[in-house]
Amino acid sequence: MQPDLLNHAQLAQTSHLFRSRTPLVHCMTNDVVQTFTANVLLAVGASPAMVIDIAEAPQFAALADALLINVGTLTEARRDAMRAAVESASAAGKPWVLDPVAVGALTLRSEFCQALLARGPAAIRGNASEIMALAGESGGGRGVDTTDTAAAALPAARRLAADLATIVAVTGEVDYVTDGPRTVSVAGGSPLMTRVVGTGCALSAVVAAACALPGDRLQNVSGACGLMKRAGGIAAAASAGPGGFVPAFLDALYQEVDA
Amino acid sequence: MQPDLLNHAQLAQTSHLFRSRTPLVHCMTNDVVQTFTANVLLAVGASPAMVIDIAEAPQFAALADALLINVGTLTEARRDAMRAAVESASAAGKPWVLDPVAVGALTLRSEFCQALLARGPAAIRGNASEIMALAGESGGGRGVDTTDTAAAALPAARRLAADLATIVAVTGEVDYVTDGPRTVSVAGGSPLMTRVVGTGCALSAVVAAACALPGDRLQNVSGACGLMKRAGGIAAAASAGPGGFVPAFLDALYQEVDA
Amino acid sequence: MQPDLLNHAQLAQTSHLFRSRTPLVHCMTNDVVQTFTANVLLAVGASPAMVIDIAEAPQFAALADALLINVGTLTEARRDAMRAAVESASAAGKPWVLDPVAVGALTLRSEFCQALLARGPAAIRGNASEIMALAGESGGGRGVDTTDTAAAALPAARRLAADLATIVAVTGEVDYVTDGPRTVSVAGGSPLMTRVVGTGCALSAVVAAACALPGDRLQNVSGACGLMKRAGGIAAAASAGPGGFVPAFLDALYQEVDA
Repeated sequence: MQPDLLNHAQLAQTSHLFRSRTPLVHCMTNDVVQTFTANVLLAVGASPAMVIDIAEAPQFAALADALLINVGTLTEARRDAMRAAVESASAAGKPWVLDPVAVGALTLRSEFCQALLARGPAAIRGNASEIMALAGESGGGRGVDTTDTAAAALPAARRLAADLATIVAVTGEVDYVTDGPRTVSVAGGSPLMTRVVGTGCALSAVVAAACALPGDRLQNVSGACGLMKRAGGIAAAASAGPGGFVPAFLDALYQEVDA
Repeated sequence: MQPDLLNHAQLAQTSHLFRSRTPLVHCMTNDVVQTFTANVLLAVGASPAMVIDIAEAPQFAALADALLINVGTLTEARRDAMRAAVESASAAGKPWVLDPVAVGALTLRSEFCQALLARGPAAIRGNASEIMALAGESGGGRGVDTTDTAAAALPAARRLAADLATIVAVTGEVDYVTDGPRTVSVAGGSPLMTRVVGTGCALSAVVAAACALPGDRLQNVSGACGLMKRAGGIAAAASAGPGGFVPAFLDALYQEVDA
Repeated sequence: MQPDLLNHAQLAQTSHLFRSRTPLVHCMTNDVVQTFTANVLLAVGASPAMVIDIAEAPQFAALADALLINVGTLTEARRDAMRAAVESASAAGKPWVLDPVAVGALTLRSEFCQALLARGPAAIRGNASEIMALAGESGGGRGVDTTDTAAAALPAARRLAADLATIVAVTGEVDYVTDGPRTVSVAGGSPLMTRVVGTGCALSAVVAAACALPGDRLQNVSGACGLMKRAGGIAAAASAGPGGFVPAFLDALYQEVDA
């Protein structure tokens, strides 16, 4: 079954919806990518907020439009706060998204991510190794890097999506976004995106924002992936390396509504 | 009562004092803005240091020239360390500044900020919703975003400043800096500053540095706001979006002494 | 005894080894420099991963190629996790590097760093005040800034290196890298590097990566210092201030393999 190619019109629609609705995304994410994640959300027209303590996170998760759970620098305290925030978001009918950074290789996060799957994520965004590990198919990558291609992980992604009635975005040189029966492929981007920390983590935040939009969630998440791919390609073409890439990428995201 | 306009000569004076005295600012701030806050302080000529554990923060607060308390990603452990640092700074006669991020909407930080008010901040810097919430007038904004204008919050800011014998900077499209009887308005800047995370939080750190300077504190804090507004205007004019804005803003701050 | 000048050919060799081996560096570092540290490692061709909880850090330290311990925003929980990670890295035969940020001035980190010295670091990277404090010769600098020159700290660095059978890199306007008997001096760079937060902390991560390379560790660490100095000089020449410096520096590191 061939994936569908992302419809170009979807990019303009997703971009328009971000700007007209400015979804407020509650980000519980890792220490390394906080600033970049916030700036990416602001650039696409969404609104970020980081609230992390167990005394506040459940309260905020019910107020925000979507919740991101990224286990990149997990601690036991954050795990407990994340679990409480997921419960609160679910109770309030708000979508939450899982980014299972480096799942498989490390015990604490692997057990936590597996336990979270039962709580109904609106979407899961990971690289090939992470998605395969989450589906029980491999032992994880090398640190945060994948050792597999997204295409190799597509069967696992489809099965995971179907089993959990969720959306799985497995990202790499080509991104695949699937709900099980349907799959959309998203090409573009640049290898330079792998030399900048946080492009995947920030995409997960944009996926969370997309899950708060009205309409077909598979299309909205695909549009989110497409916006990041397109901005990555524009920025890479305009940059001498990963340093110049970051400002060029944020500017490209910011200007995409006009594209 | 009309606010006074910021005197342009104050910018040069504040900038000169930052560079000649390099105030060491102990920043206890949120996870999202640490790097940007440090780089902004370095660019204006001050010196940042982040020390966060309750075993070290009080020790360092007595050594530094000023202390910043920003409750953006508050945890219970940080709250306790912040409280101890405030006590230590106060005992050592060092000024401390409060940035009450998203106060009003969330219980832990709201209770903590209210309790801190009794401990004599040298200045408070917040957006309109935060200042109004702190003064007991509204329930807070939407996440970290304000839903009010700075002008609408000016009466609350004046009353808060007078009641606490402090300086309140309520910032927005126009900033107002007040000690109750006197108010200075600071225009300039750019809407692009709201599409970059941390411009307000970094301003609070610069306000803390300003509180360590000799002379009229109201004028020094106004000068700090003015330096940020001017650099923001310069950077926005030179940028295609929020990505290019960040380096241009730091460069403009760095070059302001010559302006 | 005159230090040797860094051999220019070492830069190309170190750069080549980073790119051909992509050492995976487990960074346990401070909150302020996480993003910049990761991006610097990616730019030189290494691979960063931040894993911080005591439940995961020892597990990951055994998998990674090198471990960085930076005490910049130390907490008691992180100290315990760092200690466990150092033990695990040592048991697995993996090198670990100490960056003793602001040691001397603050009790918790001073006691911790002194205790760590007995556990056999592969290298120590600090500014003059930090290295002198670690050697028991002074009370530390002003916050994170040094109040001494690297040359003044060279005798302390040599003694520390000889006593611990380690490499000490004391960095400043000129860097000195010593194992006791041998010392290499590394010139270059720019004063602008002191107006950007994290250049020293990121260097420590690159030093950790260098300790995972085959060959003479003193030469590899010197090469790491030289790569950062050269990129700093290139970036400063191309920048109007510290804002533009950051992207230019990362781009220069990324392009250095061709230099």
